[in-house]
Amino acid sequence: MSNPVPYELYYWPGIQGRGELIRLAFEEAGTPYVDVARQPEALGGGVKALMRFIKGDGAGTLPFAPPFLKVGELVIAQTANILAFLAPRLGLVPADEPSRLRANQLMLTIMDLLVEVHDVHHPIASSLYYEDQKQEALRRAPLFLGERVPKFLGYLERLLARDGHLVSDAVSYVDLAAFQVVAGLRYAFPKAMAGLEPRIPLVSALHARVASRPNVAAYVASARRLPFNEHGLFRSYPELDVAPG
Amino acid sequence: MSNPVPYELYYWPGIQGRGELIRLAFEEAGTPYVDVARQPEALGGGVKALMRFIKGDGAGTLPFAPPFLKVGELVIAQTANILAFLAPRLGLVPADEPSRLRANQLMLTIMDLLVEVHDVHHPIASSLYYEDQKQEALRRAPLFLGERVPKFLGYLERLLARDGHLVSDAVSYVDLAAFQVVAGLRYAFPKAMAGLEPRIPLVSALHARVASRPNVAAYVASARRLPFNEHGLFRSYPELDVAPG
Repeated sequence: MSNPVPYELYYWPGIQGRGELIRLAFEEAGTPYVDVARQPEALGGGVKALMRFIKGDGAGTLPFAPPFLKVGELVIAQTANILAFLAPRLGLVPADEPSRLRANQLMLTIMDLLVEVHDVHHPIASSLYYEDQKQEALRRAPLFLGERVPKFLGYLERLLARDGHLVSDAVSYVDLAAFQVVAGLRYAFPKAMAGLEPRIPLVSALHARVASRPNVAAYVASARRLPFNEHGLFRSYPELDVAPG
Repeated sequence: MSNPVPYELYYWPGIQGRGELIRLAFEEAGTPYVDVARQPEALGGGVKALMRFIKGDGAGTLPFAPPFLKVGELVIAQTANILAFLAPRLGLVPADEPSRLRANQLMLTIMDLLVEVHDVHHPIASSLYYEDQKQEALRRAPLFLGERVPKFLGYLERLLARDGHLVSDAVSYVDLAAFQVVAGLRYAFPKAMAGLEPRIPLVSALHARVASRPNVAAYVASARRLPFNEHGLFRSYPELDVAPG
């Protein structure tokens, strides 16, 4: 018997970022994967391996940016696209089409929130340092925390209140993403989240339920879980953590 | 025989916006659809009909924002999700899984570009007027036009150069989206696009090919095609149209 085709994840090796949503899916499912850029260069890893695809030297569809997943000859990019492909194979989404459409819809909404999370500290350009757009960030942060985060998390709260779950009663990749969003927002904006969370108890409870799942808990406690840091999406800049008025 | 379930599109009635990517798919396919919020309120249309779902009074999955599509009992939101659902039914994507993954990947990349298009004129908050964030917009625009637009359109150019198409040789919903992006960027940034387009001839040619398709040409010439305006994603603010240095 030949081995099954291994899953190769390509993502920046020093941050959680969008790649973390895919790592969490593999970890919850207990499915082996290779986090390629975190392997030694001598073994074909490192950022070099990732850049080879971005430059167009690899086979398969050219990715615009990490994360991307290689499975045999397939190269799949865009986080929500990767997860829509993986989730049925990992048992992280129900089989019926309405559930998959719903899961993808919610995942894309969470991805939209992640763009806004990033742009709080980079409102002018990704190519500039935070310090060079800090004045604009200081203006954006209270609006983001006062309007956008409550709108996005309030939306998830309403879904949980109305339907009792985001996708279904079994854990889904959208639950994992919601967990990651809450964890990241707590890291980046502890004061604002302390003010907001009493208004979104079902979202907080979902975070706790996911955090206590054995595979997720073991992963988060392991060296495989990179710490949050100030190179990723969720950054702890205390001056941006303003409690909404 | 009962009638087939009609497609009901819910989107803001005064702008092209993200809804236009779905309108274009229906128009190219020649498939009837109801653009609900553009129907008279007396006939169940108007923004009221749309807000009913956003407020959670409608059946099906709660949408976070327009556009969303109602098909029988299904309510599907998020542009790329709607198109991944529709395209196989409209004949706008090949049947095999690798092609669908590729199409979704490219569509999501185009959607990422659209967020950046919007945020050029709204770098601080969607809830503020352009005039109240114009200074920040003036700082963001040259970086967007000098770095991001060339990166995104250059990516599409490389795909066309390497593979001869975005998805396949038959027209796909991604081709329609690429057409819309070029049309919108030309409207919003004519000077910058005049400088850039000589470097992306295959993207320009794709725009021309899509524009000359009979159903697309008839649609664009019709009253159903809303004009670009300064309420949509692509806005003509001459002060932001700086030719990249």
